[in-house]
Amino acid sequence: MECVIYRSDGSARTREEVEGSEEALKRLRDAPEGTFLWIRLTDPSAPEVEALAGELGLHPLAVEDAVQAHQRPKRERYGDVLSVALRTLSYVDETSQIESGEAMVFLGPDFALTVCHGRVDPALEAARRLDQDPGMPALGPVAVLHALLDATVDTYTAIAEEVRGDLTGLERRVFSSAREDVIEEIYSLKREVLEFRDAVQPLVPVVQDFAGPRSGWPEEALPYFRDVADHVHRTDTEVRSLDELLNSVLDAHLARVGTWQNEDMRTISAWAAIFALPTLIAGLYGMNFAHMPELGWTYGYPLAVAVMVGACTLLHRSFRRNGWL
Amino acid sequence: MECVIYRSDGSARTREEVEGSEEALKRLRDAPEGTFLWIRLTDPSAPEVEALAGELGLHPLAVEDAVQAHQRPKRERYGDVLSVALRTLSYVDETSQIESGEAMVFLGPDFALTVCHGRVDPALEAARRLDQDPGMPALGPVAVLHALLDATVDTYTAIAEEVRGDLTGLERRVFSSAREDVIEEIYSLKREVLEFRDAVQPLVPVVQDFAGPRSGWPEEALPYFRDVADHVHRTDTEVRSLDELLNSVLDAHLARVGTWQNEDMRTISAWAAIFALPTLIAGLYGMNFAHMPELGWTYGYPLAVAVMVGACTLLHRSFRRNGWL
Amino acid sequence: MECVIYRSDGSARTREEVEGSEEALKRLRDAPEGTFLWIRLTDPSAPEVEALAGELGLHPLAVEDAVQAHQRPKRERYGDVLSVALRTLSYVDETSQIESGEAMVFLGPDFALTVCHGRVDPALEAARRLDQDPGMPALGPVAVLHALLDATVDTYTAIAEEVRGDLTGLERRVFSSAREDVIEEIYSLKREVLEFRDAVQPLVPVVQDFAGPRSGWPEEALPYFRDVADHVHRTDTEVRSLDELLNSVLDAHLARVGTWQNEDMRTISAWAAIFALPTLIAGLYGMNFAHMPELGWTYGYPLAVAVMVGACTLLHRSFRRNGWL
Amino acid sequence: MECVIYRSDGSARTREEVEGSEEALKRLRDAPEGTFLWIRLTDPSAPEVEALAGELGLHPLAVEDAVQAHQRPKRERYGDVLSVALRTLSYVDETSQIESGEAMVFLGPDFALTVCHGRVDPALEAARRLDQDPGMPALGPVAVLHALLDATVDTYTAIAEEVRGDLTGLERRVFSSAREDVIEEIYSLKREVLEFRDAVQPLVPVVQDFAGPRSGWPEEALPYFRDVADHVHRTDTEVRSLDELLNSVLDAHLARVGTWQNEDMRTISAWAAIFALPTLIAGLYGMNFAHMPELGWTYGYPLAVAVMVGACTLLHRSFRRNGWL
Amino acid sequence: MECVIYRSDGSARTREEVEGSEEALKRLRDAPEGTFLWIRLTDPSAPEVEALAGELGLHPLAVEDAVQAHQRPKRERYGDVLSVALRTLSYVDETSQIESGEAMVFLGPDFALTVCHGRVDPALEAARRLDQDPGMPALGPVAVLHALLDATVDTYTAIAEEVRGDLTGLERRVFSSAREDVIEEIYSLKREVLEFRDAVQPLVPVVQDFAGPRSGWPEEALPYFRDVADHVHRTDTEVRSLDELLNSVLDAHLARVGTWQNEDMRTISAWAAIFALPTLIAGLYGMNFAHMPELGWTYGYPLAVAVMVGACTLLHRSFRRNGWL
Repeated sequence: MECVIYRSDGSARTREEVEGSEEALKRLRDAPEGTFLWIRLTDPSAPEVEALAGELGLHPLAVEDAVQAHQRPKRERYGDVLSVALRTLSYVDETSQIESGEAMVFLGPDFALTVCHGRVDPALEAARRLDQDPGMPALGPVAVLHALLDATVDTYTAIAEEVRGDLTGLERRVFSSAREDVIEEIYSLKREVLEFRDAVQPLVPVVQDFAGPRSGWPEEALPYFRDVADHVHRTDTEVRSLDELLNSVLDAHLARVGTWQNEDMRTISAWAAIFALPTLIAGLYGMNFAHMPELGWTYGYPLAVAVMVGACTLLHRSFRRNGWL
Repeated sequence: MECVIYRSDGSARTREEVEGSEEALKRLRDAPEGTFLWIRLTDPSAPEVEALAGELGLHPLAVEDAVQAHQRPKRERYGDVLSVALRTLSYVDETSQIESGEAMVFLGPDFALTVCHGRVDPALEAARRLDQDPGMPALGPVAVLHALLDATVDTYTAIAEEVRGDLTGLERRVFSSAREDVIEEIYSLKREVLEFRDAVQPLVPVVQDFAGPRSGWPEEALPYFRDVADHVHRTDTEVRSLDELLNSVLDAHLARVGTWQNEDMRTISAWAAIFALPTLIAGLYGMNFAHMPELGWTYGYPLAVAVMVGACTLLHRSFRRNGWL
Repeated sequence: MECVIYRSDGSARTREEVEGSEEALKRLRDAPEGTFLWIRLTDPSAPEVEALAGELGLHPLAVEDAVQAHQRPKRERYGDVLSVALRTLSYVDETSQIESGEAMVFLGPDFALTVCHGRVDPALEAARRLDQDPGMPALGPVAVLHALLDATVDTYTAIAEEVRGDLTGLERRVFSSAREDVIEEIYSLKREVLEFRDAVQPLVPVVQDFAGPRSGWPEEALPYFRDVADHVHRTDTEVRSLDELLNSVLDAHLARVGTWQNEDMRTISAWAAIFALPTLIAGLYGMNFAHMPELGWTYGYPLAVAVMVGACTLLHRSFRRNGWL
Repeated sequence: MECVIYRSDGSARTREEVEGSEEALKRLRDAPEGTFLWIRLTDPSAPEVEALAGELGLHPLAVEDAVQAHQRPKRERYGDVLSVALRTLSYVDETSQIESGEAMVFLGPDFALTVCHGRVDPALEAARRLDQDPGMPALGPVAVLHALLDATVDTYTAIAEEVRGDLTGLERRVFSSAREDVIEEIYSLKREVLEFRDAVQPLVPVVQDFAGPRSGWPEEALPYFRDVADHVHRTDTEVRSLDELLNSVLDAHLARVGTWQNEDMRTISAWAAIFALPTLIAGLYGMNFAHMPELGWTYGYPLAVAVMVGACTLLHRSFRRNGWL
Repeated sequence: MECVIYRSDGSARTREEVEGSEEALKRLRDAPEGTFLWIRLTDPSAPEVEALAGELGLHPLAVEDAVQAHQRPKRERYGDVLSVALRTLSYVDETSQIESGEAMVFLGPDFALTVCHGRVDPALEAARRLDQDPGMPALGPVAVLHALLDATVDTYTAIAEEVRGDLTGLERRVFSSAREDVIEEIYSLKREVLEFRDAVQPLVPVVQDFAGPRSGWPEEALPYFRDVADHVHRTDTEVRSLDELLNSVLDAHLARVGTWQNEDMRTISAWAAIFALPTLIAGLYGMNFAHMPELGWTYGYPLAVAVMVGACTLLHRSFRRNGWL
């Protein structure tokens, strides 16, 4: 648990790290207006969250959301506390897979509580951004929400980039001459794109609401949320396009399998013909007719073999020419 | 039939089971405000429902809904009685199939009537939850509605989990090297997902209405309904994803059948070539030319057989190398 | 043409059949308030409709609708006359096909005119229901509209049941081991489901409007229309599911054709191998080498045949074991 | 260019054809109220339209629309002039193809200008209808709009009929036993249905607007526009159904190609077996064993041939029975 | 960087090119009302944009948008500055590919700033159009927005034409008898159509807003924006149709690959039969029966060969007739 108090007194802004939430809350109570507290929890246990929720006066259902993972992205208002749930995603390079976690923000009048579960902790990045831009904390706890959203959505953009890279790789393999079987890869990418979509799509209306005039944020905050809304929207469009392209890639692969089969069948048939011709000739001279002048010729045998070889060569060449071999 | 009277007098809450609806209604009439009666019917006969409906003054159309099964999830208001129809689902482990039943709730000013048909009776679980959380009954009959919705939606979540498990099993079989024919399983899972969807999808707007400010519930009840709405929404998203994944799995299976066929054709052709070569050589030495020096050699025959075996081995090896065998 | 006058005088309700529309309209004019006339036409000729329309003062465009068939389901208001067009459907058992007709209702302040074309006449059933429930006619002409809608929608439900039965039959044939070619049946069921959908889908908003508070019906009529709206909605959902399942059945059939082909190819190849082996052996002993000791053995021939039979049996058995035969 | 002045003075209605737009406009200026002018242009050149637009005071952008073809169906208001663009379609019997043109209407307070490009000129048919129904011109220029819409939409209905006929023909060929390759026909019909859809779909909201109370038309005109709206809507539904059926027909054709291939493979394999059996027997008696008693039999040869023929007949018959031949 | 000052003083309009933005802004400040400045940047560096943004007082987030490419089409309002982002597209003839760039417009009360990145610079074409129509600049900075939108959307229309041409080419190849493998081309066209769609689709609501009465433009500007909105809408419809047609083309190609395979299989089988027949006959006369009268005939051998040739010719002809060859 990390507790940071942001003070914004006129043009002077200070930032103070405090040990323990109790101490932090006490100091907050004594602070002048324009001060707010940010408490960051990473993979907390249920009792930890519940204790803190008691101190902050959060609604029991809000706490339940923070404890159990796999929330769908949403905003919820309990009294004067706004809670926002996000899905955090991370791209695991080794397996080319997307892992998902969860981040929750609770915004009160003078505090912000963020709870992160999973591989990625966007709160760290959000804190870094908040500290870099000294103007933002003046907006109050909503600055934390913006920083967290911004950091999360930036990872989305990066992952969309990675997924598009994977798709481009698949495309190259589908259309390469190596005849790779990429069905399983296509399917597993499809699965991930669907999971990605389920993380991004429900976030679109949430963030759009934050960017509108009815969000209740200070006027100066709106452009920042509109910026985030725009990024979410772009990622959403990108994910849909990826989904459609994946369907098309699978169709294209299907069509190519059909084409390969056709090509193989031709190749095989060409070779079968090349085998069948000398077999037929051999069968001819295996006949037991009493009067078969060729059989008596001194050079009959080598001639027959020569005819076989010649016919096969001819066949082979003509198959080459019409593309069957 | 089970009748329970919930009394909520200031901070004191009591709960009394009464035998028979007539007796229960009499006691209800004499009770102070804040008291309500919950009547639970399980697989009732039509006359049973009709008799009770007469006592409670329900609308004949509402009663008809409660008697005949296969309602679609909906809310309906008849005078001051609200009726809500739900589909109850249960996952039968032995057959991996979903069975559906029905639950109806009628909410009057001071009573709640629940009627359940089918394998699952969410009213039992709802009663258990209501008894565990003594604060809920203070909200009046709406607490029964919430408990029933909550219990039903939790079974949805569990079933979605089971179905996803079945899907994962199918995926593993589709992409295993064992070449199983899973079309029928995919199709029957598809059928169930469609039935699942038909149970969940029409419930989304119903529960969303309950969670909104225009539902007419006491303010304290709204977060609980928002929680249920959120779960229904999540299940709905999950079911859609499952549906899409099933389509993709069928496509992937189709593509794999094509690939298998290609592989089989290659294997078969390779073996055909391995057979055809010695047959050709045998044909050669079956020719009746007078002058075929090899025929006279003492070791001609074993040599010919050796050539055959050698050629076949060579072919076999090269087919191995290029992946046809 | 059938003309029935419904009188509703306080609690006393009477019903009188009148010969001829002129006589009926005369009597209607002299009747007290709460009286209305229902005129039923079945497969009328254009002049018949036009004559009656003149007597009732209907709009020429409304009349045109009643004369020509193949209207899409709709509601239309011409002055104080409401016209509603419906598609009537009937399931022809012998051919498993859906035939469609049309029903129109014109509701004036004190009359209802119904015009039915086609195989099914829902007006008969509607009249039966109206006579059975003596309370309904007190609602005025709108009771006729409800009765007709109710009767029509009940046939929809029955047909949906039949179509689902046909689908289940197709499913069984697709997944049976008999390898039936059901493509044409799937397609023709698809065609019917589309026609079914075109009858039901545009009716949904029409009936939904009737069930809402802005329909202008008496308050007591609304629950009845909500009931009809609910049935239409359910049929609509059912038809969509049927449509999706049909698509999936066709996909499944396609996948099965692929699988069958693969199985056939394996069977054929196995038999080809079983033929090829003895042919090779026969070829071997057809060679003309001077020194082939086996050829001189007394039991060489039966031995060779025995080897052939043995090898074939062995091959056959191993193909059995790996599932190719 | 054709100019017609419609006068509507009380109950007396007259119609006068005038040579040249200048003369017509002069007469219009002197005419009493209730008079309007209809100018019809067919495939006009750009300067022709521009000159006329100057006389009528049309907006330059409106003129641009009238000159260049390939507008999408739309309504546009420039000052007090309403412009409506339509796509006119015609079915070319010889090629079974749909050709599209364009019709534009400009409605001013006392004039209507129609400009038609392409194969079909709905203005002729519209004029015929307007002259037949003497009551319509009393509505003013809007009567021209209605007549043109009505004439155009009636051609849509006729074309939908033709396209459905083509589809039925394709269905018959897909499911005939003649194994025709109808892919190209299906695709080209698909293309036309898409073009049809692009003509009809954007017209739906335009005409719906005209049929609503906010269109600004006189009350008596509304039922006529509702009638047109209904026809457009019906065509739109029809075109969608055709589109879906075409997709299904292509799928069905694909499935049939798969089935044919399977059948062919079986037939081919059956014949291969019928060839392979006598070849094997011939091979047997081609072996050179010293002790093969059959070889010495007087009737050995005819017996062997008889066995071959018998075995082949037997095979042929059993393949017939199991449906491979 | 190019700076142009447009003055509009009553009916007199002048246009002046100024070197450097500082000088231009100074002159602007001194100019009478009705004057505005257009600054055009092409592929500017980040500092260049930032410097200019400082001079014009743009919001930092707006500047960020102008610096980084790959914005999605959108409109954004920062204070009294409106920013609009567009995707510019160009069709590269050599590769038949679509390349995309970006254009941004910032409209202040008396200035317009356009920033273009990428291959195409619509600002040049927009400037040309603005100079040609001297009436437009009187509308103020919004004239720049219109000119840029108009120029961009016209390139969309041209590209849609090119893509449709590519599609027609693909169709011809799919249905030609040359059996070309066009899967990769279809897929890559699909990719481009998707990218095209992502550029056009989000622009539709943006431009529609500009065309509506709530856009805040002067009344005279609205028809011009409605004209642009109409073109965007048409392109959007066109792109959707292209997308659907591409899917159908891929399906058609798949069906054709299946048909080809069937044809090939028949051809191959026919040739196999033509080979198998003489092989069987040769085998017959290779049998070693003691009593085979034909073997002793003087013309036995040529007769046998004649029979072989004759049978093959017969087979070949009959295969020709039934279409297998």
